[in-house]
Amino acid sequence: MLTIRDPVHGFVRADALEAALINSRPVQRLRFIRQLGLTYMVYPGAEHSRFSHALGAMELAGRVYDALAAKSDGVLPQGPGAVERRAVRAAALLHDIGHAPFSHSAEELFDEGIDHEEMTRRLIAHEEIAGIFDRLGGPLDERRVAGLIAGGNPEQAPGRASADDERGVERLLAQIISGELDVDKMDYLLRDSLFCGVRYGSYDLDRLLDTMLPIEGSPSDRSSSPGRWGIGVDEGGVHALEALVLARYYMFTQVYFNVVSKALELHLSRWLVAAGWRWPSDPESFLDHDDVTVTSRMRASDNLHARAVTTREHFPLAFETDEHLSARQRAAFEELLPRLDERFGRENLLESHSAKDPHRFGQGNLLVRRADGTTTTMERASHFIRHLQRIDRYRVYARPEMRDEIEEAVRAWWNA
Amino acid sequence: MLTIRDPVHGFVRADALEAALINSRPVQRLRFIRQLGLTYMVYPGAEHSRFSHALGAMELAGRVYDALAAKSDGVLPQGPGAVERRAVRAAALLHDIGHAPFSHSAEELFDEGIDHEEMTRRLIAHEEIAGIFDRLGGPLDERRVAGLIAGGNPEQAPGRASADDERGVERLLAQIISGELDVDKMDYLLRDSLFCGVRYGSYDLDRLLDTMLPIEGSPSDRSSSPGRWGIGVDEGGVHALEALVLARYYMFTQVYFNVVSKALELHLSRWLVAAGWRWPSDPESFLDHDDVTVTSRMRASDNLHARAVTTREHFPLAFETDEHLSARQRAAFEELLPRLDERFGRENLLESHSAKDPHRFGQGNLLVRRADGTTTTMERASHFIRHLQRIDRYRVYARPEMRDEIEEAVRAWWNA
Amino acid sequence: MLTIRDPVHGFVRADALEAALINSRPVQRLRFIRQLGLTYMVYPGAEHSRFSHALGAMELAGRVYDALAAKSDGVLPQGPGAVERRAVRAAALLHDIGHAPFSHSAEELFDEGIDHEEMTRRLIAHEEIAGIFDRLGGPLDERRVAGLIAGGNPEQAPGRASADDERGVERLLAQIISGELDVDKMDYLLRDSLFCGVRYGSYDLDRLLDTMLPIEGSPSDRSSSPGRWGIGVDEGGVHALEALVLARYYMFTQVYFNVVSKALELHLSRWLVAAGWRWPSDPESFLDHDDVTVTSRMRASDNLHARAVTTREHFPLAFETDEHLSARQRAAFEELLPRLDERFGRENLLESHSAKDPHRFGQGNLLVRRADGTTTTMERASHFIRHLQRIDRYRVYARPEMRDEIEEAVRAWWNA
Amino acid sequence: MLTIRDPVHGFVRADALEAALINSRPVQRLRFIRQLGLTYMVYPGAEHSRFSHALGAMELAGRVYDALAAKSDGVLPQGPGAVERRAVRAAALLHDIGHAPFSHSAEELFDEGIDHEEMTRRLIAHEEIAGIFDRLGGPLDERRVAGLIAGGNPEQAPGRASADDERGVERLLAQIISGELDVDKMDYLLRDSLFCGVRYGSYDLDRLLDTMLPIEGSPSDRSSSPGRWGIGVDEGGVHALEALVLARYYMFTQVYFNVVSKALELHLSRWLVAAGWRWPSDPESFLDHDDVTVTSRMRASDNLHARAVTTREHFPLAFETDEHLSARQRAAFEELLPRLDERFGRENLLESHSAKDPHRFGQGNLLVRRADGTTTTMERASHFIRHLQRIDRYRVYARPEMRDEIEEAVRAWWNA
Repeated sequence: MLTIRDPVHGFVRADALEAALINSRPVQRLRFIRQLGLTYMVYPGAEHSRFSHALGAMELAGRVYDALAAKSDGVLPQGPGAVERRAVRAAALLHDIGHAPFSHSAEELFDEGIDHEEMTRRLIAHEEIAGIFDRLGGPLDERRVAGLIAGGNPEQAPGRASADDERGVERLLAQIISGELDVDKMDYLLRDSLFCGVRYGSYDLDRLLDTMLPIEGSPSDRSSSPGRWGIGVDEGGVHALEALVLARYYMFTQVYFNVVSKALELHLSRWLVAAGWRWPSDPESFLDHDDVTVTSRMRASDNLHARAVTTREHFPLAFETDEHLSARQRAAFEELLPRLDERFGRENLLESHSAKDPHRFGQGNLLVRRADGTTTTMERASHFIRHLQRIDRYRVYARPEMRDEIEEAVRAWWNA
Repeated sequence: MLTIRDPVHGFVRADALEAALINSRPVQRLRFIRQLGLTYMVYPGAEHSRFSHALGAMELAGRVYDALAAKSDGVLPQGPGAVERRAVRAAALLHDIGHAPFSHSAEELFDEGIDHEEMTRRLIAHEEIAGIFDRLGGPLDERRVAGLIAGGNPEQAPGRASADDERGVERLLAQIISGELDVDKMDYLLRDSLFCGVRYGSYDLDRLLDTMLPIEGSPSDRSSSPGRWGIGVDEGGVHALEALVLARYYMFTQVYFNVVSKALELHLSRWLVAAGWRWPSDPESFLDHDDVTVTSRMRASDNLHARAVTTREHFPLAFETDEHLSARQRAAFEELLPRLDERFGRENLLESHSAKDPHRFGQGNLLVRRADGTTTTMERASHFIRHLQRIDRYRVYARPEMRDEIEEAVRAWWNA
Repeated sequence: MLTIRDPVHGFVRADALEAALINSRPVQRLRFIRQLGLTYMVYPGAEHSRFSHALGAMELAGRVYDALAAKSDGVLPQGPGAVERRAVRAAALLHDIGHAPFSHSAEELFDEGIDHEEMTRRLIAHEEIAGIFDRLGGPLDERRVAGLIAGGNPEQAPGRASADDERGVERLLAQIISGELDVDKMDYLLRDSLFCGVRYGSYDLDRLLDTMLPIEGSPSDRSSSPGRWGIGVDEGGVHALEALVLARYYMFTQVYFNVVSKALELHLSRWLVAAGWRWPSDPESFLDHDDVTVTSRMRASDNLHARAVTTREHFPLAFETDEHLSARQRAAFEELLPRLDERFGRENLLESHSAKDPHRFGQGNLLVRRADGTTTTMERASHFIRHLQRIDRYRVYARPEMRDEIEEAVRAWWNA
Repeated sequence: MLTIRDPVHGFVRADALEAALINSRPVQRLRFIRQLGLTYMVYPGAEHSRFSHALGAMELAGRVYDALAAKSDGVLPQGPGAVERRAVRAAALLHDIGHAPFSHSAEELFDEGIDHEEMTRRLIAHEEIAGIFDRLGGPLDERRVAGLIAGGNPEQAPGRASADDERGVERLLAQIISGELDVDKMDYLLRDSLFCGVRYGSYDLDRLLDTMLPIEGSPSDRSSSPGRWGIGVDEGGVHALEALVLARYYMFTQVYFNVVSKALELHLSRWLVAAGWRWPSDPESFLDHDDVTVTSRMRASDNLHARAVTTREHFPLAFETDEHLSARQRAAFEELLPRLDERFGRENLLESHSAKDPHRFGQGNLLVRRADGTTTTMERASHFIRHLQRIDRYRVYARPEMRDEIEEAVRAWWNA
């Protein structure tokens, strides 16, 4: 049993399979990819990597599994050795391994037009990870894990034949990895808050775990599908879940969409394109790319955007919209952007679009079980969840000497 | 006023001079030097850099200064604008800028035989930092700051002519930066604990600040020097100070002298030497060297020791002594080492010596003021401080295939 | 300087005046009045008294004052000795001294029809407190402090003649004690959360203090009054303030309106009335009444309701409405209550009405200063604040043997 | 399953037996006995009762049991339903129920010369508790639980016939309740620290649980007894255990032996005796006595000592010895005390003796298992544990008008 100290969750323990996965190159590579990209330039504590997030997600996956299993009437077997439990923990550990350097800045640079999710799948299928499952996985193989990461969808990554999953157990497990209430956000909110030194992302983890449960949809209740299991909360957990949604909302508005780190990210993206960076689609070659390799080359470059990042002398903000544009306003601003580029030159401008839905409960995909045993949807159970506004904001940054002129122009067009 | 969030101290604020220093290359370079070198390989959270430590030390310097000034009967002027206060904050911010990459592993590689403290002095005197003081320092110049870092010793770095410092104020201020109760250790204990996820380094900062005071030695008390000021605590602070000493002691035994990170450090040192690394003695060139530059080259190397670090497949431990060797035992083990090298080949061995005094109160350099106004030394005030044992331990790591043979040999010699 | 350890705020320091007030009988009496009444029966940690809350409110009053003064362009003088600062700290310390035993359960039992606020005024004017101000208050007298507690309203408690307060400074100070962003709720949210062991009430105190500022209304901005100062936040503080509002909202729904503690409170009220308790309107006699005196007599009583509290065998819940009744629903339920009493007998029923506005920003009484210097109201600045629903819920508890019958009746009437 | 929020341990869960015990009068009575007696007069947050400590001890008993069972090679059965586990949890919950009001001040006032431990036994054997075990205990009866509290000693409270306990399992379980590393101190250190607002009592609970294990003594190792099981730690836990010992040491010196609360306790004791208080030896009558009943009568008394407590105007300190008297010094001071009483009158003096061994490892009763499988004792494993000094201090408080005269006399005698 490998035991690791984690600043967020205390002791994290790993069995032989997990220890081998942790020691594999794809997981160790995550040590050199910062969880929050360039945010550490603004929040100095945010120097943490995706590696500790991966460990934290694995730890939480076990806790969430245990919480669900205890209330699943035997649908999910209990105990540390249950293959379903081992599967979700492995999936949580591996869910991010396909991320490119500085992740979110560089998603479109993959060769063959693949994305980081496809790279995750390729890395799992590649010999190092697949070999570890062969040796230590027992009944658990890497395809099932890849399937969970892909959403329990057997077409995308056939973890289990759909015929085997009539009750939708695999989809239920997949929601632990990626869903409205998944271990990815459960971990990153606490972790990013701790390292940034803010409290926005804090919520009541224990209370949430205490109220999570698997809910089977029934034909009479339109809000769920017959025979399908989903993650839900009991009525007493509605406020705890609201708090998680709020925590995520504030982390986006205050940290992830920070005005300075957004500017630095845009400079980085511009330079990556200018310098002709591409992420290999071949997993073996892909492993050679991380923040260190990119930073080394960026330092050697005299490209304007590379310099902006390394010296932190980014284009200043010329204009930003309100934080909550309507769809109409958004369309209107989108029309402005080409005019701006045309008039002032794209090389003199950076344009950011920070958009996020506060949640995706609108499709009825998180159920709440009332005290009387009936279910409802989260959006019906929580008035205030319904009224959280989508974050939708544009920012225009400009070359310093043109900033005032550009501000005036955007302002005039926007107010017209 | 620049405001920065810090995970340890909350909001850290910087005035114009401090903001300019923070933005200077020597301070920004600290973002790329990990505070704990390779310890993050063992404690995944320990990915923090010396940059946030520098900010934290600055913040604490202000708080310690305020605590002392309030009890100094006017010797230290109060208020945020006091030049003495600005001096200690700047000194705390800059005290580490001369550190080489992976700092402690690589101290002996400086050109011209200088050390990191000399490099700190050179960087402060260099045009970028000196220029900032010229523009924004007002009555505070960089020489005074360098003098504080050098211990308030006017010979080493003439901050103020000794004639100006008859009462030893400069030496008092210097103790805030480096002494038995300095902001360096006050910050790193809390910071390293937080990021490692351990509690060993936690102590009661508020209580300690509350009991710190400047104590003037008097001729009748042998424990202090006439007319010299020093940092002390009042009687009520003895236990709080004991707790700090313990916190440091545990951090050394549990974290800083960790058996695995020591092995990795030794491999790193071996490779640095083998690869011919030297740290320039010229400050301008020195700034180009940090963990990223070293890591990039290390990855490209197929040197055995470089591979050991990058793959974490270090030589296993073959032997370690007790944690508290006596002086006689230490001398005996030192005699063993050349015999070991000779018999098994130095290239097949790594030898670490982890030694630390739990404190240096033995020279009477921390005074305690009793309720009746008399003073005593910390070592007399605290029985248990007197009995903390010096940490003194040797470890021998060996090439895997020779490990057992080497263990047997060391064991035989050592027990002989 | 008296120094006291507080679990929420660390060290709380008191000058000579404050120390004497803390030692006075009216403040010491608060040690025997639990902050949350009978809530400790549900949350065992909630055994804290109003005494530590009073100290915490005083500590926060100083911090809020300092934050406002630093941004007040001299309207509020800075420094620990400023009489305005001493006034708000004293007011915060004393703001709760008129509370009756088990406070909220027993507000209507005062003689002469006074309320706890009037009792607070009488206690401040009474010889013990007034005498302390005479001896130690210097330029600060108890009438000014009483005036601040009364809302800076010179008619109610003439702190300063209104002619002296053309700029509304007194009203500004009064908002520190009681207003939308006052030290009462700033303290109790953190304190009650800590002692209850929940996280609902946690918010970012440092960030909030950092963004608070005094805002002067201007004639051109309808949202404020000319020449009147109010507490506000800058634009960057809107989210921090939202978080405080949410924290309060959750504390009400999860803790303060807890279904069991509400039942116990209703039993207590019934017994207090049945036993003929009255709180003296004379301050000297009033001081003899606290939780201990009431508890002692309650234990000796064989009244049904007294037994219910002491054995915790309260009437079970028979019915509760939704948490957010509309005004129409509320009126409808109010009509049900007399019918219930009539049919089943008031002695067999307990009826609770838990109602709370999530905030009172609707009257434009908290201003937000935008980056461009203009002001807006909090309700305009925060979409989601506008959509927080008022808590408005009725509960009916019933004598155990009649519970089912009563549930059926209420349900039938309510659904009709 | 009853779920309770605890500020120290988060969610505490209780099964049907435990819930019934929690609801029993002997356990509920603990709500009205403050954990730290009159300490809340000095540390305002210390208003917590023994009730939450009892819940916390029960929670920790389960965690400690699980940690030991996992490493016990089947000697302790695993799983929540194991009767051994249920026994230690019940014992931890009930271990304090015999405490008199203001506990430590009043131990000698029991009728029949019994002590609080005997009262605990009587209450467990009394019908209310015994009846609960009859109904809900299944194979677990109250005698086994009483036996564990009595130290697993079948003579004192025959939990199990000694013939049934050849391997000493019962004694091992008893050490969880009372021993060098028991859940009593594990809980009270964290709890008292939290409520007092100090950090002295904080230690690394998770690390300690991680390193605890049952160790079976073997004939060849003199430090243990053949065939006897004891609680120990592995080598890696020595520092964590040192930290717990230190935490306890500091709590005694800084909080439990606080100079003011000691004075108040002595006044209380004097009044209890003067007022003729006796704690009934009959459990039924005993239950009527708690802090509330004592406080009510104390308030009504005009006895000098009762007034001292209620007004906090205690006798001032006239003299205190060093904190670490030698045995010889202690004997010398003991001789002074009758002379003091004789000369100044016992009614004008309060004398406190605060004494505590920092640990009781001297009898080899806590074993450490080395990496090589051998065992040693804690006192041999930890140099600094050996050198912690026993706390042994006398204080003399005096009637205010005689204080100076008495100080002079004690000082003269003591220095003679």
